[in-house]
Amino acid sequence: MRAYRIVGWREPPRLVDADVPEPGPGQVLVRVAGCGLCHSDLTMAGISAEIGEAIGWRVPFTLGHETAGRVAEVGAGVTAVRPGDPVALVSPASCGTCRLCARGLDASCPDGLAGRGYGRDGGLAEFVLAGSVRELVPLRGLDPATAGPLTDAGATAYHAVRRVLPRLHPDGTAVVIGAGGLGAFAVQFLRALGGARVVAIDTNPARLDHARELGADDALPGVDGGTAARVAELTGGRGADAVLDFVGADATIAAGVAMVGPAGAFGLVGAAGGGLRAPWSGTLPRDGEVFAFQGSSIADVREVVALAERGAIRNDVEVFPLDRVEDAYAALDKGSLRGRAVVRP
Amino acid sequence: MRAYRIVGWREPPRLVDADVPEPGPGQVLVRVAGCGLCHSDLTMAGISAEIGEAIGWRVPFTLGHETAGRVAEVGAGVTAVRPGDPVALVSPASCGTCRLCARGLDASCPDGLAGRGYGRDGGLAEFVLAGSVRELVPLRGLDPATAGPLTDAGATAYHAVRRVLPRLHPDGTAVVIGAGGLGAFAVQFLRALGGARVVAIDTNPARLDHARELGADDALPGVDGGTAARVAELTGGRGADAVLDFVGADATIAAGVAMVGPAGAFGLVGAAGGGLRAPWSGTLPRDGEVFAFQGSSIADVREVVALAERGAIRNDVEVFPLDRVEDAYAALDKGSLRGRAVVRP
Amino acid sequence: MRAYRIVGWREPPRLVDADVPEPGPGQVLVRVAGCGLCHSDLTMAGISAEIGEAIGWRVPFTLGHETAGRVAEVGAGVTAVRPGDPVALVSPASCGTCRLCARGLDASCPDGLAGRGYGRDGGLAEFVLAGSVRELVPLRGLDPATAGPLTDAGATAYHAVRRVLPRLHPDGTAVVIGAGGLGAFAVQFLRALGGARVVAIDTNPARLDHARELGADDALPGVDGGTAARVAELTGGRGADAVLDFVGADATIAAGVAMVGPAGAFGLVGAAGGGLRAPWSGTLPRDGEVFAFQGSSIADVREVVALAERGAIRNDVEVFPLDRVEDAYAALDKGSLRGRAVVRP
Amino acid sequence: MRAYRIVGWREPPRLVDADVPEPGPGQVLVRVAGCGLCHSDLTMAGISAEIGEAIGWRVPFTLGHETAGRVAEVGAGVTAVRPGDPVALVSPASCGTCRLCARGLDASCPDGLAGRGYGRDGGLAEFVLAGSVRELVPLRGLDPATAGPLTDAGATAYHAVRRVLPRLHPDGTAVVIGAGGLGAFAVQFLRALGGARVVAIDTNPARLDHARELGADDALPGVDGGTAARVAELTGGRGADAVLDFVGADATIAAGVAMVGPAGAFGLVGAAGGGLRAPWSGTLPRDGEVFAFQGSSIADVREVVALAERGAIRNDVEVFPLDRVEDAYAALDKGSLRGRAVVRP
Repeated sequence: MRAYRIVGWREPPRLVDADVPEPGPGQVLVRVAGCGLCHSDLTMAGISAEIGEAIGWRVPFTLGHETAGRVAEVGAGVTAVRPGDPVALVSPASCGTCRLCARGLDASCPDGLAGRGYGRDGGLAEFVLAGSVRELVPLRGLDPATAGPLTDAGATAYHAVRRVLPRLHPDGTAVVIGAGGLGAFAVQFLRALGGARVVAIDTNPARLDHARELGADDALPGVDGGTAARVAELTGGRGADAVLDFVGADATIAAGVAMVGPAGAFGLVGAAGGGLRAPWSGTLPRDGEVFAFQGSSIADVREVVALAERGAIRNDVEVFPLDRVEDAYAALDKGSLRGRAVVRP
Repeated sequence: MRAYRIVGWREPPRLVDADVPEPGPGQVLVRVAGCGLCHSDLTMAGISAEIGEAIGWRVPFTLGHETAGRVAEVGAGVTAVRPGDPVALVSPASCGTCRLCARGLDASCPDGLAGRGYGRDGGLAEFVLAGSVRELVPLRGLDPATAGPLTDAGATAYHAVRRVLPRLHPDGTAVVIGAGGLGAFAVQFLRALGGARVVAIDTNPARLDHARELGADDALPGVDGGTAARVAELTGGRGADAVLDFVGADATIAAGVAMVGPAGAFGLVGAAGGGLRAPWSGTLPRDGEVFAFQGSSIADVREVVALAERGAIRNDVEVFPLDRVEDAYAALDKGSLRGRAVVRP
Repeated sequence: MRAYRIVGWREPPRLVDADVPEPGPGQVLVRVAGCGLCHSDLTMAGISAEIGEAIGWRVPFTLGHETAGRVAEVGAGVTAVRPGDPVALVSPASCGTCRLCARGLDASCPDGLAGRGYGRDGGLAEFVLAGSVRELVPLRGLDPATAGPLTDAGATAYHAVRRVLPRLHPDGTAVVIGAGGLGAFAVQFLRALGGARVVAIDTNPARLDHARELGADDALPGVDGGTAARVAELTGGRGADAVLDFVGADATIAAGVAMVGPAGAFGLVGAAGGGLRAPWSGTLPRDGEVFAFQGSSIADVREVVALAERGAIRNDVEVFPLDRVEDAYAALDKGSLRGRAVVRP
Repeated sequence: MRAYRIVGWREPPRLVDADVPEPGPGQVLVRVAGCGLCHSDLTMAGISAEIGEAIGWRVPFTLGHETAGRVAEVGAGVTAVRPGDPVALVSPASCGTCRLCARGLDASCPDGLAGRGYGRDGGLAEFVLAGSVRELVPLRGLDPATAGPLTDAGATAYHAVRRVLPRLHPDGTAVVIGAGGLGAFAVQFLRALGGARVVAIDTNPARLDHARELGADDALPGVDGGTAARVAELTGGRGADAVLDFVGADATIAAGVAMVGPAGAFGLVGAAGGGLRAPWSGTLPRDGEVFAFQGSSIADVREVVALAERGAIRNDVEVFPLDRVEDAYAALDKGSLRGRAVVRP
């Protein structure tokens, strides 16, 4: 089969021939219907052998961690799915047996550093292997050709929104910094579940328009020294109940933390490498919460799929054939996509 | 009456004569039986008019925010307490009517910046005024002469412990950095409520002995570059479920954050002015929680008093008469106290 | 002023002349703009002196516990509101000082049995007294003439929905039994906050149409022996994550409990006096939750008002002048109202 | 090997010869070191083919669902445990893949009705099979010969206590009705985690003495018409924050529900088949919580094992050899055991 792979440390990915994997006991082989592309894919070719091996990656591996398709073949002992069933593949890896997985905190599982599409074979190929039924979410009404982005871009944004819901009230405000792929999903989840006013912030006017269309009540043009004051004004001086930062630069973190009102939450999703230079005491949200994470839980993926199945959220995609995968990444890198790029083998 | 007061901005406090306040409608006058001293008192004389006024402080004001005593006189309309009733006074100020107070989040009330003993008349006097019955916690078996420190040193440590309980499990570990007044209380609350292993860290060997006596399972001598690795080792590589930092310096924050395992919590209580120089993504606890606060809620004070009444925690104090208040502060400043200093008018 | 009052135990209410109350210290006099009528009002005339006195009621008292208006006069010490301010009055009574109020659980306050409109003077009069600013919710964009029902019909339904949100997931189902005044609000809150599929059940086809219009995905015509099986079918055998019963008869409780899936919630709001005749073990939701309550918290009222101000929910009312209050009650009793009856003095 | 089995529907169990099972892929064979006996075992011989088959049971099956031992052999692909490792086997069955398991709610998994020792081969044999590593909890310091009861009697009581912790505060009270095997564990968990006053109720004075020894503050001799009033008195009229009923008869449910204060919890664990004859509205705890369950989660078992490993709880057992298993059941049935009976093959 054809697969888009990183074949060596610090080597750019390329389309190569690869063997179709065989499902072992408990495993499931899935014929890929579509696989979403993620900004993080673009950085993987830069990883050194040293770092890669330290986090448990192996080369070669196929890229792609936003995958859906149809069951092609099941391994010994698998009865819960059958060939032909449409499924999405959970993006984050987890062991299913540690103390965190036992509590439903599989998003924090220590095994999460290497997984399908990041250190293991992912979905930019004709077939992909699921390690167990636990990693599959049945699709009841969605087209597997385009469902892939729900499992990562969607589920990551959803995870962030779920985290802040206990602190977000209908008489409060949620702020989304960075209204691109993940941020646009966050606006939708906040609309569907939060009950609060939603403010979107982005430097790109087209994204702000999109955010309004998806339900944002207010839109602000990027972060500067006055943005926190503007949010204070919009909230009658109370500050936001929740701020989700999908950028993660020094400037967005500083402004975002300053926007949070007492007992509010600041969630960092974006990996731009920023930090906070101020003393924590007196700067962090007063008796609030700061959190950072990557990925999502299996339950998150199930819930995002359910929301999409009921039409409660939109999942805008642009579809490319597998032999144009490099064009798709180029468009992603340029920011010229409207919605998520999905590659169909 | 005699009162120990800050009489002007940037002036050291002194023992002066003051009028006994009159309880207005809904208010309660309390004859002070004992008032605890707090490190924060030592810094108040340094506050400028500009900052003081910005946060709503007024001079002169009597110091002391760890107060208990007996009801002396009640204002019009007060029926819930009667003269002679032993009571502790809630230390943090709150309005009782805002959206945060309505949810029991009075520890986050915007009115909390100025209160009894910090910008308003506190407990280092013969009498002190409570604004309403809501600010009083009845004492059923505790001596009001020594109960004061429970309302601040105790309740603040308790607030921190309550915050982390949802993330702390019996198969996990809690770390207390700084085993002084608040930290020693935290060890006790973790012992009474957490079910988890408790590790105390302090540079002072006497405090570590004390922490062990109060129930700490392990004790580590201060924070250095190897402390996080030592905690990793003690926890079988999992890291701590919760770290409470009662110091708050750059070094303790860096080490404390590094000790936290996935889905764990880091709570900053100490106000040494530290921060975190590293990028947040990849450094903050993975899908965990970071929080910072000052003070506690009314419910916290009630619960700490209940624990002390049932003998579930100890409250070690050294008692000084009011005319030796400056000796008491000197001992506090030197770190030569065993337990909290309490001043009796 | 004119007031619609119960003037003696077991006497029907009537429109009488009454004194305008004087606001004491901390109190606020409100000129009533509109007061909603509630089914529970109809039962109050039947209460005996013995029961009434046992729960702390006093006669005479003015009916009406869904009140909004404008501040007319403030008592000594009140600064947070001013004459002319539009406000809604929190319906349930609470002390503001007990251990439950301190935690934001004022909906459970022991003082809640007697309050404005049930044992104390309520809103069916030209003026009504609020005991403190804590009992007022500022209205920022709503007309006080019609906002009253949000404080009780709205807030009670909201309280039920908030209770079940932690057990309700987007891949699950919520069932509302009884789609009248409160149930119709519940459908809207589930739509705004729950993310899950919503099933409405009612014997009245007009109410089912209304429920669909407000966002219910499915509608079932009343409860019988097959209703739980029908819900099982609709949910792929999983059962509902949450069932809210606004009727509370034996039949609705039996069917409602049977509809709940493992780890789900059954909330009883309706006071039809029903119970469950089956053994609890094996019948109650497996490791789920059953709860019953009356009223709501102050935070609930604030949040319902916020949702209405943002247009996230509708509040359908029919307005009557005070001298037609008995016609309004007759229409309520007959079930011929579309929306809630509001009486304007 | 020897195994104590139910060999046909409605037949009493007996000691028979059985084949040692072979671990398939992912499975683990455990040599049993000790297996606890449970009251529920005594009822299994009475189950009809019709009911048994409806809940997915198969005959013959070996009894015993409180098992610990050492890994004897691992199936293909198992790397997390090795022969010789001491392990406890999680008692409740769960699929590991459904939406409830994904959230850590495996105690509610639909697959939980049939499991090891109830419809499948359990631990009263020389060897027992674990379906996956997920079902094993490593023992770090406990003797597998006696650890078995922690996995069921211990974990079930723990599950009940975890459920009520959010409603239980140090200024409140927890009541345990029935201080036998599970109830005695509950007293210990409440002591270790709850911070509140603990009241034990039992008709057996020896059990009340035992409960006091384990940390109960008060002990009441059984439930009658005055018990709820007695608890009201002990709690200053507030009622209990939490009542756990390990009996589950009509009388204990009626009294237990009446003991619960506003916002409190009633948890039903005992399966004596009782219910509540009163109308629910006005009888169920005001805005509180009622729940019922069987079994526990994997996380519960891990946490109970951790508490026992740290010496925070006691696990009293009486040991019998496998050929005296019927004497052990007789002693259990008679109530003459002090602690749990454990059978060693």
